[in-house]
Amino acid sequence: MEKQGLLYEGKAKKIYATNEQDVLWVAYKNEATAFNGEKKAEIEGKAKLNNQISSLLFSMLHEKGIQTHFVKQLSDYEQAVKQVEIVPLEVVVRNATAGSLAKRIGVEEGIRFENPIVELYYKDDALGDPLILDEHAIFLQAATQEEIDSLKAQAFQINKVLSSFFKERDIFLVDFKLEFGRTSQGDIILADEISPDTCRFWDVHTNEKLDKDVFRRDLGGLTEAYEKILQRIGG
Amino acid sequence: MEKQGLLYEGKAKKIYATNEQDVLWVAYKNEATAFNGEKKAEIEGKAKLNNQISSLLFSMLHEKGIQTHFVKQLSDYEQAVKQVEIVPLEVVVRNATAGSLAKRIGVEEGIRFENPIVELYYKDDALGDPLILDEHAIFLQAATQEEIDSLKAQAFQINKVLSSFFKERDIFLVDFKLEFGRTSQGDIILADEISPDTCRFWDVHTNEKLDKDVFRRDLGGLTEAYEKILQRIGG
Ligand SMILES: Nc1ncnc2c1ncn2[C@@H]1O[C@H](COP(=O)(O)OP(=O)(O)OP(=O)(O)O)[C@@H](O)[C@H]1O
Ligand SMILES: Nc1ncnc2c1ncn2[C@@H]1O[C@H](COP(=O)(O)OP(=O)(O)OP(=O)(O)O)[C@@H](O)[C@H]1O
Ligand SMILES: [Mg+2]
Ligand SMILES: [Mg+2]
Repeated sequence: MEKQGLLYEGKAKKIYATNEQDVLWVAYKNEATAFNGEKKAEIEGKAKLNNQISSLLFSMLHEKGIQTHFVKQLSDYEQAVKQVEIVPLEVVVRNATAGSLAKRIGVEEGIRFENPIVELYYKDDALGDPLILDEHAIFLQAATQEEIDSLKAQAFQINKVLSSFFKERDIFLVDFKLEFGRTSQGDIILADEISPDTCRFWDVHTNEKLDKDVFRRDLGGLTEAYEKILQRIGG
Repeated sequence: MEKQGLLYEGKAKKIYATNEQDVLWVAYKNEATAFNGEKKAEIEGKAKLNNQISSLLFSMLHEKGIQTHFVKQLSDYEQAVKQVEIVPLEVVVRNATAGSLAKRIGVEEGIRFENPIVELYYKDDALGDPLILDEHAIFLQAATQEEIDSLKAQAFQINKVLSSFFKERDIFLVDFKLEFGRTSQGDIILADEISPDTCRFWDVHTNEKLDKDVFRRDLGGLTEAYEKILQRIGG
C-alpha cells in the first residue's frame, strides 16, 4: 500500500489517501489536547501508544464479531482503515458517573449505573459538542433513526466486550466515546479510535486513572499511564 | 377557603397552605426574571395577566379531558390548585427551533419540526437546568420510566390541544415548558403554570413575539404583549 495526499489533519491523527480503493492511511500524532483544544501538549511516545492500543482493541473486537474500520497496523504509529463517511455524533457509553456527566447532573464520580447509558453528542467543535436527543440528531440529518438504533445497539455490544476484556485485566472501563461511519455499502460500522484518549480506565484495586484524565487534571505522566494500559492488554 | 402560611416563594409565584386538604393558594408575582435569575424587573400588571391566562388555559385543558392541578381562580392574581409533589423535570415541548435549542444545535429560529419534540431538563438552578436523557432522570430518581412515559404522553396531548387552540387565534405555539406533579393518589398530573412566561407565542401574520422573549431580548413592553395573548384567548 502506498501513502498518498493528506486528506485531513485532526487533533490526534492525520488521515491520508492511499492507492487502494476505500482505504485510508492513519498517522497518530504525539499531540495531546483537552477541553476542546484549550489545553495542548506535545508528548513523545503518545502516537505509538495509541496506535498500538487502538490496533489491539480493534483486532480483539473483530475477533468477537464486531465490524470495524480497522484493516491493519502499518508501523508503530500508523494504521490502515476502511474509509467511511463519519456520522457526526460522538457516541458515549457510560458504566459509571464521571467527567462532564457528573458535572452536568451534579453528582460525584464513580457511581455505577445499573444499566450502561448511551449518549449522543453532536460532533461540532464550534458548538462544544453538545449533548443531544435522537430527535435532534435526526432533525440535524446527522443520522436516521435506523442508523441511530444500529449504532446504539453496536455501542452496547462493544461495551459488553470491552468491559469484560478490561475487567479480566483489573481495569474498570468507566466510559468511552465511539465514532461510527457509513461504508460505501451503506452499513454503519465502528471507526476512529479506542484508546486512553477516548476511554476512562480506572485500576480496580487502586482506582488509579490510566487515561487522558491524567493529562486533563495534571495527575502525572501520560505515557506512563498509557504504557500500563498497553502492557495489561498484552502489547 | 382560607389562606394560611407561606410554604414557598419562587421567582414567579408565592405558594401558601390553605385550610383545605391538599389545596394550595397561589399568588402570582409581578417580578419578571430571565437567564436563571440574572435579569430581573418588577412589572406592574404581570401577576394579573399570568394568573388570568394560566387559569383560562387550565380550564380549557380540563374541558378537553386533561387532568390538571387547577381548582379555581381566587382573585385577579391568585388561584387555588391541588397540592402535588413536583417532579423535578422541566418538560419542554417544541414545534419549531427557538431559544436555547437553536443555540445548542447551531440553527436559526423558527424551523418547524415534522413531529413535535419533547425534552427533559433537570430542575436544578445551581446546575442551570441541564438537558438530560430519560436514563439520567431515572438515575437521579427524578422520576421512574413509567412516570416519564406518562408525562411525555401527556405533554404531546397537551401540545395538540394548545397548538390548535392558539392556531385558531392566529398564534403559533413555538414551544413551552410544563411541570408535572404526583398527587396523593400517585397520579402524574399537569401542575405549575401555562403563560407567556413559559411559552413562546408568535403572531402567525407578523411573527411578533408575544411572550417573555420581549423581556429577555428587550423587544418592547411585556404587559402589552401579554395583554394581546389574554385578549385573543378571550379574557
Ligand atoms: N475510517 C475513517 N474514515 C474517515 N474518517 C475517519 C475514519 N476514522 C476516523 N476518521 C476521522 O478522522 C479525523 C481525524 O481524527 P482526530 O481524532 O485527529 O480528529 P479530532 O481532532 O479528534 O476531531 P474532529 O473529528 O472534530 O476532527 C476525525 O474527524 C475522525 O472522525
Ligand atoms: N400544584 C403544585 N403543588 C406544589 N408545588 C407547585 C404546584 N404548582 C407549582 N408548584 C411549584 O411552585 C413553585 C413556585 O413557582 P415559581 O414559578 O415561582 O418557581 P420558580 O422560581 O419558577 O422555579 P423553581 O421551581 O425553581 O422554584 C415552583 O417550585 C413550582 O414547581
Ligand atoms: Mg478524535
Ligand atoms: Mg416557574
